[in-house]
Amino acid sequence: MPNVLREEVRLPACVLRDGALERNIVEFQRYADARGVLLCPHAKTAMAPALFGRQLAAGCWGLTFATRAQLEVARRHGVPRILLANELAGAADIGYVCGELARDPGFDFYCLADSVAGVRLLAGGVAAAAPGRPVQVLVEGGLAGGRCGVRDVATAVGVAEAVRAAEPWLALAGVEGFEGLVRGEPGRREADVREFLGFLADIASALDGRGLFDAGEVLLSAGGSAFYDLVIESLLAIRLSRPHRVVLRSGCYLTQDFGLYQRLLGDVHRRSGSAYPDLEPALEVWAQVLSVPEPGLVILSAGRRDFGQDAGNPVALAHVRRGAAALRSLRGAGWTMAATSDQHAHMTAPPGHGAEVGDLVALGPSHPCTTLDKWRELYLVDDDYNVLETIPTYF
Amino acid sequence: MPNVLREEVRLPACVLRDGALERNIVEFQRYADARGVLLCPHAKTAMAPALFGRQLAAGCWGLTFATRAQLEVARRHGVPRILLANELAGAADIGYVCGELARDPGFDFYCLADSVAGVRLLAGGVAAAAPGRPVQVLVEGGLAGGRCGVRDVATAVGVAEAVRAAEPWLALAGVEGFEGLVRGEPGRREADVREFLGFLADIASALDGRGLFDAGEVLLSAGGSAFYDLVIESLLAIRLSRPHRVVLRSGCYLTQDFGLYQRLLGDVHRRSGSAYPDLEPALEVWAQVLSVPEPGLVILSAGRRDFGQDAGNPVALAHVRRGAAALRSLRGAGWTMAATSDQHAHMTAPPGHGAEVGDLVALGPSHPCTTLDKWRELYLVDDDYNVLETIPTYF
Repeated sequence: MPNVLREEVRLPACVLRDGALERNIVEFQRYADARGVLLCPHAKTAMAPALFGRQLAAGCWGLTFATRAQLEVARRHGVPRILLANELAGAADIGYVCGELARDPGFDFYCLADSVAGVRLLAGGVAAAAPGRPVQVLVEGGLAGGRCGVRDVATAVGVAEAVRAAEPWLALAGVEGFEGLVRGEPGRREADVREFLGFLADIASALDGRGLFDAGEVLLSAGGSAFYDLVIESLLAIRLSRPHRVVLRSGCYLTQDFGLYQRLLGDVHRRSGSAYPDLEPALEVWAQVLSVPEPGLVILSAGRRDFGQDAGNPVALAHVRRGAAALRSLRGAGWTMAATSDQHAHMTAPPGHGAEVGDLVALGPSHPCTTLDKWRELYLVDDDYNVLETIPTYF
Repeated sequence: MPNVLREEVRLPACVLRDGALERNIVEFQRYADARGVLLCPHAKTAMAPALFGRQLAAGCWGLTFATRAQLEVARRHGVPRILLANELAGAADIGYVCGELARDPGFDFYCLADSVAGVRLLAGGVAAAAPGRPVQVLVEGGLAGGRCGVRDVATAVGVAEAVRAAEPWLALAGVEGFEGLVRGEPGRREADVREFLGFLADIASALDGRGLFDAGEVLLSAGGSAFYDLVIESLLAIRLSRPHRVVLRSGCYLTQDFGLYQRLLGDVHRRSGSAYPDLEPALEVWAQVLSVPEPGLVILSAGRRDFGQDAGNPVALAHVRRGAAALRSLRGAGWTMAATSDQHAHMTAPPGHGAEVGDLVALGPSHPCTTLDKWRELYLVDDDYNVLETIPTYF
């Protein structure tokens, strides 16, 4: 097996640690199961069918996607149940979904709606394609100043009524929101998230009270990777006239990270007074030292085209002397990413940093989504960085 | 032919306007030819073999790349002459290049070196692979506080001597630098660029005076997409004991942009007192209006996974009413990208903006590199946005 530390792979390289990945998949599924909620992980994080399969095998209810291009990848790889956590508006895109519904009776599909105009547009496309069964719709609740989603209950009722009026092309399956968009001061944020979840509950109650939901269980979906504990607590507590299920869409638990989501996990633990779920970072970017052109300046062969920066720059994790294949930790060693180019990182390092041309340095990204989407191939490695498998991505 | 304005493609979509692209290719080649310099465009910008072919057909000398993964794509698509504008350090990566040199006598390859350690590492790898002919090396000159590259002439001489000492595995072909890394106050920047180019000239003179260059013409290479006029002026003026050629590596001229590089082109025109080269933006991202959840807030179906933001957010270019397929310009119409998510742009728009759910909005990115690398397929369109061709990228 080729080994990353021995430079037997293309560099730079995006590496997934198999053990950590597997533990995260099992742990988070267990966490959702124990709380009685359905897990429908946002799979846009890695867009790797090899990982879709592992998440589904671990017991998740379905997978969440955000765009039509992602949907196509999922369907080509046989994902049977999909929550499109987005409005579906493109004419060709609606046609594609209907084609899949007609082709495969086992395909279970849900998408969002937040306006009467959008519902009519969607219904028109479905009517034209006549797939033989409805597109299932969740009414999206949104935040003032936020993204998509109705801003008040009255609008939600109007949207839901439009969905009902569009039978048999559409069916109203539930209510959705994304609490991760709540911004504001750290001290206020949890209270604001609870308030937003309360708004989703109000929508659900209003639609339920008017008998607008389709037959069967009502789906209430929220949950990114920051406040899933609050989502479970709030949405399970809702009482409707019929059974409902909570659908969690967290995606980043798969790989965690070394920045934002690690801090957010700490918040979850603090709120629950426990260490559950116990997740660990599984995603690393390995680069080579190309130059040490000045004392204290180390130029690496990975740059802004190799890792995300939207939630902060990656941290330096480890240093491997060329040929030695042994890790030396750089956590807390004073290395900082001072600047980046498309294909280079400019690291400042303290005196005696010990890095030489040809050595390897591992970087730990913050926010996995914007690092993973920069790679077409991920190296799945064992604890010794032997490559177990090359995993293709489909962004 | 499917048409973008009629929603007959996957949305969001990354669009290249064929006419503008072709004019840019021809214009910039003509500009280089007229000034007697060789053009070796940085092809990491689009990583689209279909465009490699058009640039080569227009007469460019070779193509520039930055990483081993990019090299592989180029070689698989038959690019005969490659300047790797980077150090080559990975053991597997050096082995790959040597394999190509051994396999294909027509392959002409150059890379950079900026340290004796790096030269020894490279020479060791080449010696082990014994490709039958040398890897051609350019000594890289760098900037204090910048990226790779020697910081003084004495180091450059040491690196060049190490290259000579590594014959027959390596050959010293020239000197390289990237003036685009010059930072500092706008008023100082041009003077600093000239000073940096003077430093490259000093290196070239020192190596020439010591007889370190290999037989044949000496290559002097610089030139991103900001100061190529100054590069041509400075590097053509150097006098060495033997003929030299200036190799320009500009890449962004291919598509230009609607932000940074359009401003930088204005600077080139101002400095030359002319309108040459006459380049036009060819790259657009088309998204759909998914929601108008509040007055003055328009949510589009493209986000930070669909366009770059490192040189500023894209600007709103045009609005198309759903079904109308007619463009209304949004330039200067007061639309602003206020926030982004992975898959959404949050636009603020003035009263009476006229955008409705299902409409299309075209966005004009700044810095093409970090937009193009987010797409696996680019739609090449005619002036009416009919799709002429779907161009795969290989990032």
